[in-house]
Amino acid sequence: MRLDVAFIPAEVAARDDLADRVVVVIDALRATSTVVEALANGARAVLPVPGIDDAVRVAQSVGRDRVVLGGERRSLPIEGFDLGNSPREFTPDRVGGRFVALTTTNGTGALLGAASARRVLVGAFLNLDAVAAALASDGGAAAVVCAGREKRFALEDAVCAGMLVARVADRTGAPLELNDAGAAAVALAGRYGADLVAMLERTAAGRQLIEAGLGEDLAFCATVDRHGVVPELHDRQITL
Amino acid sequence: MRLDVAFIPAEVAARDDLADRVVVVIDALRATSTVVEALANGARAVLPVPGIDDAVRVAQSVGRDRVVLGGERRSLPIEGFDLGNSPREFTPDRVGGRFVALTTTNGTGALLGAASARRVLVGAFLNLDAVAAALASDGGAAAVVCAGREKRFALEDAVCAGMLVARVADRTGAPLELNDAGAAAVALAGRYGADLVAMLERTAAGRQLIEAGLGEDLAFCATVDRHGVVPELHDRQITL
Repeated sequence: MRLDVAFIPAEVAARDDLADRVVVVIDALRATSTVVEALANGARAVLPVPGIDDAVRVAQSVGRDRVVLGGERRSLPIEGFDLGNSPREFTPDRVGGRFVALTTTNGTGALLGAASARRVLVGAFLNLDAVAAALASDGGAAAVVCAGREKRFALEDAVCAGMLVARVADRTGAPLELNDAGAAAVALAGRYGADLVAMLERTAAGRQLIEAGLGEDLAFCATVDRHGVVPELHDRQITL
Repeated sequence: MRLDVAFIPAEVAARDDLADRVVVVIDALRATSTVVEALANGARAVLPVPGIDDAVRVAQSVGRDRVVLGGERRSLPIEGFDLGNSPREFTPDRVGGRFVALTTTNGTGALLGAASARRVLVGAFLNLDAVAAALASDGGAAAVVCAGREKRFALEDAVCAGMLVARVADRTGAPLELNDAGAAAVALAGRYGADLVAMLERTAAGRQLIEAGLGEDLAFCATVDRHGVVPELHDRQITL
């Protein structure tokens, strides 16, 4: 089974034909963790949108009381929005039965950029094993796209991708065909996977969250296999 | 000391101000290895140029007999050129006292893209310790730019970058301030540094060279500290 990793979206955006691939998008701190948590807690759908205006338009078209507006700019909540981008906020009582319009700096763009793929799944430490099972079950060529951070490599996404690749290999029982980044991701998971919180604390994204008073998000986002759900993007909506 | 690693040139090209940095460009398979070898073997200067036409123009302006034309497209030598991009070809009798015009798929573009930096050094496994000494001696903020492969992550450049970072840390004796990619590169050097040839054989670039009948380049490019030289780019010319 072919499984390529891209450490930043630009590695696939301009060149790859994703049309025959099942793609997993990872933004472990925090957008894809938030998507997983929201849907596991009963949100009807998550709509990733590029801009603040787009989120407001979703609320206008679907009905303000049926939509939760969430997201961040520079890690911080957006004025007038209901929630930030902390998965801890997306509790059943806040999101149950409602749509979530989400706009973030890196993750939502990576999700929308992968939309041409045969399938687009949403991965995080929170649902690692469920996504690994989905890839192994799909069986087709796959790619993992790390959202990265401001168009650069982000260690937390690479480690998450590597743990995912290792689990897919365990499940398929056959060696995977990995690109260079896939091999590197597995090595990074081996180096950092045993203490994810310590790893997150040293990343640029993790440090920024701690500085913003959102350090509790690190341990939350590092909770491996908290949920057994596999969010999937169809027609700009992510559902289970 | 601040030391950032970029796994592909795009991570710095659009966003970073390199003006206050000393930058090391690495394309271990094979462009920067070729630059190091050519200059260590007595070439007067290496001129990295983007296109085949540019190399021909250099020969016309400097004098055809004073210039060696080298480079590759898809790993293979270019028609009408004197040499390919195999460092083994750049022997003293071929390049001694002459200019080398070099055009390659990834490395020469990465070198030219870094030209706005305060200083641009050329690194490879071949001159690892000399470059580490130069960075430690410079003492200013530094960056390592991996050429990567066709705008994607290349494991061999990341491992070389990580070994370089580790040696700079040894020499400075103080903890370096690393970005996420810098920490990842050090981890990858720890995982793959003990058997560089085995690592190169599994990379996309290494496999392509083996398929092209150029497998001997792998062991050659993996010869750590073969030369004690530090090539530096000034005004589009690389000299010692």
